[in-house]
Parts: sequence; C-alpha cells; structure tokens
Amino acid sequence: MTAGSLVDELLSSMGGFHIDEPPSAASELEKRQDDMANLLATFKEHLQERSAHSIAPTLGTVGRINEESRTRRNAGYPINFEFDFGPVIEFLNMRLNNAGDPFMECNYGIHSKKFEIAVLDWFARLWELPKDQYWGYVTSGGTEGNMHGLLVGRELFPEGIIYTSCDSHYSIFKAAKMYRVQCIKIDTLFSGTTMKGAVDDLDEIVMILENCGFANRFYIHCDSALVGLMMPFIKQAPKLTFKKPIGSICISGHKFIGCPIPCGVLITRLMDINHVMSTNIEYISSNDTTIEGSRNGHAPIFLWYALKRIGYNGLGKMVENCLKNAQYLALRLREMGVSVFLNALSITVVFERPKDETFVRKWQLACQGKIAHVVVMPNVSLERINMFLEEFTKSRIALLQDKCVAGDVGQENCLCSLHLDRKKEAV
Amino acid sequence: MTAGSLVDELLSSMGGFHIDEPPSAASELEKRQDDMANLLATFKEHLQERSAHSIAPTLGTVGRINEESRTRRNAGYPINFEFDFGPVIEFLNMRLNNAGDPFMECNYGIHSKKFEIAVLDWFARLWELPKDQYWGYVTSGGTEGNMHGLLVGRELFPEGIIYTSCDSHYSIFKAAKMYRVQCIKIDTLFSGTTMKGAVDDLDEIVMILENCGFANRFYIHCDSALVGLMMPFIKQAPKLTFKKPIGSICISGHKFIGCPIPCGVLITRLMDINHVMSTNIEYISSNDTTIEGSRNGHAPIFLWYALKRIGYNGLGKMVENCLKNAQYLALRLREMGVSVFLNALSITVVFERPKDETFVRKWQLACQGKIAHVVVMPNVSLERINMFLEEFTKSRIALLQDKCVAGDVGQENCLCSLHLDRKKEAV
Repeated sequence: MTAGSLVDELLSSMGGFHIDEPPSAASELEKRQDDMANLLATFKEHLQERSAHSIAPTLGTVGRINEESRTRRNAGYPINFEFDFGPVIEFLNMRLNNAGDPFMECNYGIHSKKFEIAVLDWFARLWELPKDQYWGYVTSGGTEGNMHGLLVGRELFPEGIIYTSCDSHYSIFKAAKMYRVQCIKIDTLFSGTTMKGAVDDLDEIVMILENCGFANRFYIHCDSALVGLMMPFIKQAPKLTFKKPIGSICISGHKFIGCPIPCGVLITRLMDINHVMSTNIEYISSNDTTIEGSRNGHAPIFLWYALKRIGYNGLGKMVENCLKNAQYLALRLREMGVSVFLNALSITVVFERPKDETFVRKWQLACQGKIAHVVVMPNVSLERINMFLEEFTKSRIALLQDKCVAGDVGQENCLCSLHLDRKKEAV
Repeated sequence: MTAGSLVDELLSSMGGFHIDEPPSAASELEKRQDDMANLLATFKEHLQERSAHSIAPTLGTVGRINEESRTRRNAGYPINFEFDFGPVIEFLNMRLNNAGDPFMECNYGIHSKKFEIAVLDWFARLWELPKDQYWGYVTSGGTEGNMHGLLVGRELFPEGIIYTSCDSHYSIFKAAKMYRVQCIKIDTLFSGTTMKGAVDDLDEIVMILENCGFANRFYIHCDSALVGLMMPFIKQAPKLTFKKPIGSICISGHKFIGCPIPCGVLITRLMDINHVMSTNIEYISSNDTTIEGSRNGHAPIFLWYALKRIGYNGLGKMVENCLKNAQYLALRLREMGVSVFLNALSITVVFERPKDETFVRKWQLACQGKIAHVVVMPNVSLERINMFLEEFTKSRIALLQDKCVAGDVGQENCLCSLHLDRKKEAV
C-alpha cells in the first residue's frame, strides 16, 4: 500500500465529512474542532499526493463511484501545474463578484473588471479582432464559453442547424438540447478526436459552407479549449483568427495557463452581441449578456497575472517546448515497442492503454477503450517524462499485453504482433 | 476627497492593467515587476476600502461605466462579510475541479466531492427531502441553479409554460429565452419585489394550480437565493419544504453564508433527474447532468466549513438576530422621518433613496427609482447600523428632499408632506 492510498483509506473511513450539529458542551466542541482540523489536514495531504503524479492530469471517466466501465465520454483534461501565482494568491480571500457584463460598471464595488478587460484585450489581439469590434468575458470554463457561442449563433440564425464533429466536447450536444436546436454530428477520422488532440480544419469548413451556397449565412463557434492558446504560436499550424469568417472562440483558463479555479475566456464580435441584445433586452429586462450573471472575480486576476508575466513570447517558448517534449515521449514509447500516435503539431500523445490499473490511477491517465493519452503540458518536464517512462517499462514488462490498437492509432503505428510481423514482411 | 476615492483615482489613472509584453532588459523587467506589485497593492487597498462600507453590500445598477441612469433592473445583492473562513483559505491555492455530477467519481483525483455531498445532504435535510430521494450540486451561483431547475421542468413538461412573477430575477427570463419556452409574467403587489425581500406564497400557488385543473401536471422551481436559508428558522414563516409538491430549490452561497466565491446550491428530486437523464444520455453522450461540467471545487469546502461550524442552531440564531436588527433599523429610520417599508419576516429594509450620491456610493446602497434598500445580513451589526444612521441623518439634513414614495412603500408608510398632513388630519 502506497502512502497515497493510505491517505485515501483514511479519508474514506472518516465519518467526519457529515455535517452534524455542533455540540453545546465546550469539551465536546473542542474535540470536534480538532477532528475537523485533522480531516482538513488529511484532505490536504491527499490533494498533494494526487497532484504529485500529474504527467497526465486528466479528468475523464465520469462514472458512478466504484463503477469500473470506462466509456468514450472520457474527455482528456489537461491542466498546467507549473505557473507560480504567489503574488495574487492573497486576493482569493476577498469576496469578489464580477457580476454581469465586464464592460458595465456596478454599484457593488468589489470586483476585478479592470483585470478582466485587460485579459480580454490580450485575447482579442491574439486572435486579431480590433479592440472596438470585440466583446467577451471570463467564463467559468469551456462549457460556458460553448454555451455562449452557440446561443449567439442561434439568436442570429433562429432556424439554424448545429453541425459539429461527433467527437466534440459533450457540452456542445448539451447546449443543442438546451437551446432546442437540431444538431447533426459529423463523423471523424481516426485521428480526429479530442482524445487525440486533433484540430478541425477551419478553412475547409468555410470552403464547404460556401460551396454549398451558405456564404454569409453561417456562424462558426470555435471550441479551442486547449489549442486556441497554442496555435497562434506554431508557424506551421492553420491560423485561428477573426480575419476568417468565424463568430466566436473560447478557451479554458485552467488548462494551458493553469489557473487554480476552472475558468475560460470567450471572445466574440461586438456587432453580433449588439444584435442579440437589441432583440433580448426588453424581454429579459437586463443588459447582462453573460450566461451566469454573478461571476467569479478571482479568475481574471489569475489570468491577468499569468499573461502579464509570460507574455506572447513566453507562451511561444512554452508551446515550442511542449511540442518537443511530446515528440520525445512518443519516440521513446515507440522505442519501447509501444503503439503510439501523435498528431502533427499536437502535444497529445496517444498510446496503448497500460494494463496495470494501479499505474493508470497513480499517473491519472485518461483512458478510452484500448488507448490512453498524455497531454504534454508545460509542467510535464523531461525529468517527469523519464520517470513516467521508467515506471511504465517496469509495469509493462510485468503485465505485457499485446493487443491490436490499429483501429485507434492507424495500422502503420500499431506494434501488435500481427502488424509488426506484416511490417517485417514488407521490409 | 476621501481616501477611498483617492485610491480609485490612482487605479483609474494607472495604465498598468494593460497586458504589454515583458521587456527583455533585466533592469526594465525589474521596474515592471515593481509596477505590477504596486498596482496589486493599490488594488488590494481599493478592495479593502470598498469592503469597509458594507451595510448594504449590494450589487445592482448594471449600466455602462459613467452612465448615471439607474433602472429597475438593479437587483439587490446581499452578501455576508462576517464569517471567518481562516482554516480553509489555504485550499484556494489548490487546483480543484469537481467536474460533472458530484455523485460520480472521476480519474482526476483533485476534487472536493466528499465535501460537496456533505453540503448537499445538509440542505436536503433542511428542506426535508430524504437522502435517497434527492439529487443536487453546488452551482456557480443563483443563475445556474435557476437554469437547472427550469431545464428539468421543461424536460418533464416539454410543452409547458413558465409562469413567474414579473419581479423575478432576470435569470428566469434569460433561461426561458434560452430554452425556447413561453414565459408569462405575473404582476406583483407593491410589496412583492426582490428589492423588498418579498416571498411568493407557495401554498397559494399550489392551490391555484390545482383549482385550475393542473394537479400533478406542474413543476415548481423555487428561486430562494437569500430566504431559502432563512425561512426554515422562522417559526411564523410559510414552510419551504419538499413535502410540498415542488420540484427544486436553489439558494446562493455567497449571500447569507458569505462564501468568498459566487456559488449556490441546487436540490432537486432524484426521480426527476433520472427521468431527464434517461432521455438525454444517448443524445449527449454524457451522464453529466450539471449545467457547467468543470466546476469550482473550492466553494463546497467553504460551504461545508461554514455549515459545520454554525450548524442549524447557529443559523437560527443568526436569522433571529438579523430580523431584530432589521426591525431596529426600520424603526430608527421612521423616527428620523424617513419613509420606510419592511415586509413581515424580512430583513430587507426599503426606504426613500438618499439624495446624496456620494453617500449612496460610499455605503453601496442598491437603489431603484426613488427607493433604496439595506439587507440586514449577519455582518450588519448594531454598531454599523448606528454608524449608518448617523451619517444618513447628516447627509439628509444637508440635502433634505421630501418626495412622495407612497407608490413604492404604501400610503400608510409614506412620510412625505402630503401623506403626513393627511395622517395628521385623520388623527
């Protein structure tokens, strides 16, 4: 039993989570305070232990507790644990609320909208939308960004149909259902899932729409959770920019930037927002165009601090480094005889799922069917990659499994005995 | 010019919010770090100054910056600044994510779902829904709670119509629009707005529905932002309970409990959620029934800590104290000759709007037309009330205004010269 699982054991055996009534006797009350302090200390230890193994800090496998089945719903979930937010941590203690539209002032003076606007300006510049032509806000995460983008699209095209990749994040389908909009799922290539770090070809999508006679009669929302921040820094990558006929872009702030609170950024065209507002304001009796209303005021300070410290150049270097490390990891895994797939310009390394479940849990690998993935974020250093590879080798030798994963990674990348033999024959 | 407005001045004159590129020269970089540290320190001072005057920590007046007009959209916004979250503050530094359903485990081990479930259990007990019959989650605030409640209602009654008070929070109308559900606004009495701390009569609503032949064919979502936590502790108050035929209740966690991050709690019937899930799961390819997906894991720890420390009894005492203080404030204002209205069993004291705008801003009073209100939260101590009254008296004598507010507070409560004279005549 590892130290980590001991802490887990301890936590699950503690009844202390239950919110019982504080006792009236002073001695009992004191004992209860001690119990609470112990529970919190144990929980902190548990979190620290879980954070220590974060080569693939992935959040997937949403399944009833103790349910073993894993499904394709498990979206990969990359988080960057490295950036030091030290100087702004103290603001977490303050009761901030960036209620409503970031560009609107409110009576309640305890907010961080100036930080928020600076962050939005930065993203608008990144995606090439002039300051006087954009609107946006810091969201509670990718889902809210997607909900907002699709809602604006629906208001502009009330009879419109959502076309989206069948491997889109589930929040897209959730929003379609919420908004009562017909949604058509488009099949993907084997390389096309989020799990594999794939990016839809924006130019081809626009071309298809125009060829089908939909010129100027479409709204494209780009769910760029992770890659929206990376693509502008990769020379060979297709450009993500508002110079193309897109309506909105959203990213997650708790992934590449590593904000400690789930958050995101949405940027859209001011023109579209004004149009939507003008049809809604009387009905809703509010000029708040955010989804949430009351909004977390801490996330904008964190994002502001990170971007101000790193800058475009710093982010560019981080992206370059991640790409290199991802290629290194893929290469080393392939040398070990592991079936591997790495999309061009991606930091998501897909490989055969390790057979050892303790290993999977320890490293918090996101798995889907027969494959696992590691998202090589800025925190995934060469040291950590080497540590991971070493443990993987040991675990693999112990539990060698040679199943074919050609369907997931492509025949040319599958190193199962069948495909390996075929390759040898071909040579 | 007060110290506070000096800080404001300083902040608005600082260009330092702009996220420029870090310079490469070491000396320039050092100067920039100093500027950032100064900006953060000034911002902290600004927040502290704004927090110091919080008799009515209200957030309303969503209007373009510098725009003076105030509209009826200004929802009152009560926050409790008093509770000491000391021992759990350190968790804010950790990257928690309570992704998806709180009752579902996930690969990503850094979450606080055990705290969340304990909080939900506590609320289910408060509102009398047995543990095996409820479902719920900690939301990002009142809006998300309302969105969830109305969505479940729509899924159960796809052809249903939303009937809601015309003074409901604007998120209700926003959700109706989002969900493409017809929404009929019901007129209110003069005492009926959120601004006045009014509570809809649940029993009468149920009776009307049944009398109109809708028995068992309705879904009631209770938006109980502030009062849902108070009503169970007021003997004379109508009972808010799942023993009545309601579908869901939501409250805000950053109001009476004073959580530093906007959040809320939603409790609903498991039976209804299972029904909705069974129709959605295939379409959405996810068993996540929350609106947001990635969810803040800090709020549940804060709520847990507050509830565990205070308990039902402690909350009861806090409620009692707030009611007493509200009555005291109303009485003293009336003695001063101010027109006042206080709903029975409410902590929201409504009175003529002070004429002095500096005073309004300093105390962050939520105003609507000719009236202002103070929500007497646990932090609004007698000392603070007395300080407020003293300043109000001074400001009022300086700028005495005697406009009739009978339409807002009722003729019998209006102390304008006209109604005061009539009262004298009647005597």
